[in-house]
Amino acid sequence: MSADLAGRLARLEQRVQQLEDERAVARVIAAYGPLVDGGDAARVAALWASDGVYDVDELLMTGPAEIAAMVRSPAHQRWIAGGCAHLVGPPHVTVTGDDAIAVCHSLMVVHDNGRFVVRRATANRWRLRRGAGGWQVVDRTNRVLDGREEAPHLLTGGIPGADVPGHSPGVEP
Amino acid sequence: MSADLAGRLARLEQRVQQLEDERAVARVIAAYGPLVDGGDAARVAALWASDGVYDVDELLMTGPAEIAAMVRSPAHQRWIAGGCAHLVGPPHVTVTGDDAIAVCHSLMVVHDNGRFVVRRATANRWRLRRGAGGWQVVDRTNRVLDGREEAPHLLTGGIPGADVPGHSPGVEP
Amino acid sequence: MSADLAGRLARLEQRVQQLEDERAVARVIAAYGPLVDGGDAARVAALWASDGVYDVDELLMTGPAEIAAMVRSPAHQRWIAGGCAHLVGPPHVTVTGDDAIAVCHSLMVVHDNGRFVVRRATANRWRLRRGAGGWQVVDRTNRVLDGREEAPHLLTGGIPGADVPGHSPGVEP
Repeated sequence: MSADLAGRLARLEQRVQQLEDERAVARVIAAYGPLVDGGDAARVAALWASDGVYDVDELLMTGPAEIAAMVRSPAHQRWIAGGCAHLVGPPHVTVTGDDAIAVCHSLMVVHDNGRFVVRRATANRWRLRRGAGGWQVVDRTNRVLDGREEAPHLLTGGIPGADVPGHSPGVEP
Repeated sequence: MSADLAGRLARLEQRVQQLEDERAVARVIAAYGPLVDGGDAARVAALWASDGVYDVDELLMTGPAEIAAMVRSPAHQRWIAGGCAHLVGPPHVTVTGDDAIAVCHSLMVVHDNGRFVVRRATANRWRLRRGAGGWQVVDRTNRVLDGREEAPHLLTGGIPGADVPGHSPGVEP
Repeated sequence: MSADLAGRLARLEQRVQQLEDERAVARVIAAYGPLVDGGDAARVAALWASDGVYDVDELLMTGPAEIAAMVRSPAHQRWIAGGCAHLVGPPHVTVTGDDAIAVCHSLMVVHDNGRFVVRRATANRWRLRRGAGGWQVVDRTNRVLDGREEAPHLLTGGIPGADVPGHSPGVEP
């Protein structure tokens, strides 16, 4: 095999790895909504790394045990019992080595007397890290899109500047 | 070419096949909403295998002909004429050989006198099979997330336990 | 390296390129919502090619400057200040060489006195082209799904007929 062909094979392996990494990150994010609406506390918690943080407007959870406790809480169980959908939109994922950043919207839609209402529309920024067990969340920060200033910044800050054609590398990451 | 390089090439082919299969499954699911809101009965029906089932709360359809009939029904045509969006969220897809399972949420959003309302938020579990013509749906089961117990179970049951880092292979599939 | 192995390597390169192209197109589409809700006019505009068009029901924008002006407009800035989420659903993407077509739904969800309402549900058809700087939008056409006839046609027209198993190549593209 010529050096050229060996190089093509090695380059292909890198390209496939990149696609697999982005797919793995998107898959962790896609698991959240179904698992949380299904009340599967253990598997929601296992999406986070042992030191992972879930920072929502009204609540800061650190580590899988606190995240599992949120899923098992009477408040969350009441949402499930009443009817609830946590939709997480298609994320914009950026993988750099063993780190990833992603942004998306999420909607919390709840059943209310035979109809459904959008209780919250939220900006999400996810940071993930590749560890021994695969990709896990190290920081998910959510801010409601109700006019508070942090929410829009969360969305734009999670899209690296270099990603958009014609732009030089930006502020983050 | 050394045995090592031949092995790397064969492994790469498998990895790319896996990515292509997941992409094909996600693509079938992404076609549903646009085709059903566009009233394209033949192409909605062709997403299902000849023995495929579409099981929604109030209706069980078996085979493409019954699914096409639903799209052509006066009830569905009235939704289109009034203004309707069937959003299918980003699916969590698991491909094992010629079988696939996926879960996602869906929203039915309808136009109502100049505004839009969420008529339904639904748990979706899809089973697909690879056949001569590609990936097709063999069973799509939907349950409204209005508090009925089957709906949350549908979501968690469609995410294999092994998928979450730190967990051993679970109940399904 | 035998001709057979060289052929397998070349075929793999093509397959990976196809996956990368679809991923790049989906990534441009996934960037729109976060960037527009974040008010990042320059980066929203840079998603479009220099001659790209953004055709919404009430407004036709041509070229990045007009698109940036829309983001900077008092009307759009008021949406951001009040709280706003432009969710773009998972797109159905078809790449053919240097051209791509994609369809999806979008929702505009706005904050309104402590609750959220769906202001618009919209049919989206995107055309993208690969240029020196990567994939960019050459035409995005949006029509509200309020019963107007163009909206459903936009959705079905953007899904090539050949894509559905058992169907021969269709009208578009």
